[in-house]
Amino acid sequence: MRAEIVSIGTELLMGETVDTNSTYLATELAKLGVDLRWVTKVGDDPGRLFEALERAWTRSDVTLTSGGLGPTSDDLTRESIAQVFGEEMTVQDEMLKHLRGLFAGRGTPMPETNVKQATLIPSAEAIPNPIGTAPGWWAEKNGHVIVAMPGPPREIQRMWSYEVAPRLKAMNPDVAIVTRTLKTFGISEGGLDEMLTPLFKSENPLLGIYSKQDGIHLRAIATAPTEDEARRLIVPMEREIRRAVGDDAIWGEDDDTPESMTAAVLGQRGLTLGIMESFTGGLLASNLAEVEGSRGFLLGSAVVYRDELLEGHGVDAGLIEEFGPVHERVAEDMARAARKLFDADVGLAVTGIANSPGPDSQGQRAGVAIGTTWVGFATKDGVGSIPGSYPSSRLRIRSRAVTHALLGLIRFLSD
Amino acid sequence: MRAEIVSIGTELLMGETVDTNSTYLATELAKLGVDLRWVTKVGDDPGRLFEALERAWTRSDVTLTSGGLGPTSDDLTRESIAQVFGEEMTVQDEMLKHLRGLFAGRGTPMPETNVKQATLIPSAEAIPNPIGTAPGWWAEKNGHVIVAMPGPPREIQRMWSYEVAPRLKAMNPDVAIVTRTLKTFGISEGGLDEMLTPLFKSENPLLGIYSKQDGIHLRAIATAPTEDEARRLIVPMEREIRRAVGDDAIWGEDDDTPESMTAAVLGQRGLTLGIMESFTGGLLASNLAEVEGSRGFLLGSAVVYRDELLEGHGVDAGLIEEFGPVHERVAEDMARAARKLFDADVGLAVTGIANSPGPDSQGQRAGVAIGTTWVGFATKDGVGSIPGSYPSSRLRIRSRAVTHALLGLIRFLSD
Repeated sequence: MRAEIVSIGTELLMGETVDTNSTYLATELAKLGVDLRWVTKVGDDPGRLFEALERAWTRSDVTLTSGGLGPTSDDLTRESIAQVFGEEMTVQDEMLKHLRGLFAGRGTPMPETNVKQATLIPSAEAIPNPIGTAPGWWAEKNGHVIVAMPGPPREIQRMWSYEVAPRLKAMNPDVAIVTRTLKTFGISEGGLDEMLTPLFKSENPLLGIYSKQDGIHLRAIATAPTEDEARRLIVPMEREIRRAVGDDAIWGEDDDTPESMTAAVLGQRGLTLGIMESFTGGLLASNLAEVEGSRGFLLGSAVVYRDELLEGHGVDAGLIEEFGPVHERVAEDMARAARKLFDADVGLAVTGIANSPGPDSQGQRAGVAIGTTWVGFATKDGVGSIPGSYPSSRLRIRSRAVTHALLGLIRFLSD
Repeated sequence: MRAEIVSIGTELLMGETVDTNSTYLATELAKLGVDLRWVTKVGDDPGRLFEALERAWTRSDVTLTSGGLGPTSDDLTRESIAQVFGEEMTVQDEMLKHLRGLFAGRGTPMPETNVKQATLIPSAEAIPNPIGTAPGWWAEKNGHVIVAMPGPPREIQRMWSYEVAPRLKAMNPDVAIVTRTLKTFGISEGGLDEMLTPLFKSENPLLGIYSKQDGIHLRAIATAPTEDEARRLIVPMEREIRRAVGDDAIWGEDDDTPESMTAAVLGQRGLTLGIMESFTGGLLASNLAEVEGSRGFLLGSAVVYRDELLEGHGVDAGLIEEFGPVHERVAEDMARAARKLFDADVGLAVTGIANSPGPDSQGQRAGVAIGTTWVGFATKDGVGSIPGSYPSSRLRIRSRAVTHALLGLIRFLSD
């Protein structure tokens, strides 16, 4: 089944608004084993919209559109589909009644411009949109389908999951897709590419490599008549990846994140966590705070953005004086101090320098390379640390250090 | 001048990778007054790539492509342009020498597959790419231009700013575009829409409204033969927006962010800042830490993720007992405690509850609505606070609270 996406709306062509819907739909189509071949963004221009939809309907089995279902004169998706199919839009009594009811429920009269949201053409059915106003259209003619969905991401995602995906799956019943993602950290994209060269030649499963903030993801997609057969296709590829890359570099699978893995490890052992961070500026705690259930283990973080304040937070001034603030002994002592400050089971600390020495630089700091970090860990049984060094650019280094710190903590607690 | 964008790469159609380049280029084209009409994503398939580029070259004055300039057999942008123009690719000695030099500098031999990155066709010139490997192509034939740029965002943005935009501007000399963005917080999109209805009808300047994390942005774009004339067109629209919306709701302009505004205010007055945050989990400090020069004013943040630990950080236990942790008096005391903890000139605190009461809820907390926050401020002259209440969804509330806290701080310090 060949598909294409048409994202409709002049705001998508003006910059400012990112077209997240097509990325969402692309990921979803991959899961359904549908071959996405084209993605087009087009403005609210009747001529170009007609051209885009007509071309799509002709060359693809399924065309998914987002946007243009509002009530204004700029919303032209229905009109364009009607024109492509050569059919007339007519108001549907039931749909109109439902729409008027929605507005009554909101306590305002329905503007007459909204009437067009209650129309259909003979070849289209309405797709319910309970969390928005405009219903979608499932329009089918000559064996080709155009599915028109609303622009707001929440609405299109719900409509997709509840109404459209099941229907497309039923149209494509003898195809099952299984995806397996292995997440790595510590080996470069080029290095992984070399280790796995033969696997990249495979057509089924297909292996993709994606560079992300939390490392390099290896994603295998297998297509087969049933899910079991697809899963069986993945097994040898996964085994070979693990053999070639090594378990040390593979830190997670599928939807795992460094944060969710940390939460799982701490949760399993019933451990609480206290953090001390300097240049990461609160990003480490903030990332952990986003995990569901973080209140179960995260006690807090002392974000000490200036090294001279470390002592006031319980860090041994003698160590800082002797080694400078970016050193394994200091990282370990920061972790110990964090553990004490929050009365936690585990202490985690990140020190380091993200940019050139500032006005408050000391001798040792001036000698430390940009991007150097030490991560410290502390439990009741002792302390530990690991070094790290990251690429330039402020936010990248912070994000990298956070990932590295969490993966390091998981390993430290597991050993 | 009519333009279109073709983003090339199968990974863009598989989900997983967001096409940020087309949004970047769309914003940039709007600044140049170039009419962007089409944006297409296409995979590394020779047939479809040829179709997309041929159609684009024919119907648009300028086609911008991103991706497909690498050395592998999947990188087909040059080959496709050559096919569209009906010309042959030939290796250019100077370009090859430069490429080999790049690899020598990295200490590795150049793989022979990279040779194609040293090719041109008669109708193309090379566009330098000093921060990457592959040069771009400026290919011009029959009065239409195809500009082929690399996929990695850093590389395409540099190439655009330094090489491509100036050249396109020179091709479009009698058009000047001036953009003016006013950033608001506190009024809904619907409310602003109503206040400014007549302005949205204007074609030049054109007014756009964009809902962002830090509020609602109102962006006016004016087109005229010269920049001065374009700027003069904006003046009455800006005046009317300020009159209708009111200066209280407008917190910034153009590239301002709540973080940059906070940094400016604190920097101007030579003030240092200490923070205490609970449910925002470190996001407030982390956002401020990203601002250039944050080391000049940000001392640190006590991220106290559990209310029972507030007392250990210097907050008056009696207040918490009497009012519960989410209250203006507690927010003010947290700000005072933060100021003291870090020996700062200014203390900023955010308390509040982002989600349903957890296992550690107290009586008062159970009575507080989801999304309620108090923001506290402290200086040597006293304390202050403001309430806030935000939409659901964990990250939204945190982000919203951070924006609100910073804008509140700026106002508190200015009064």
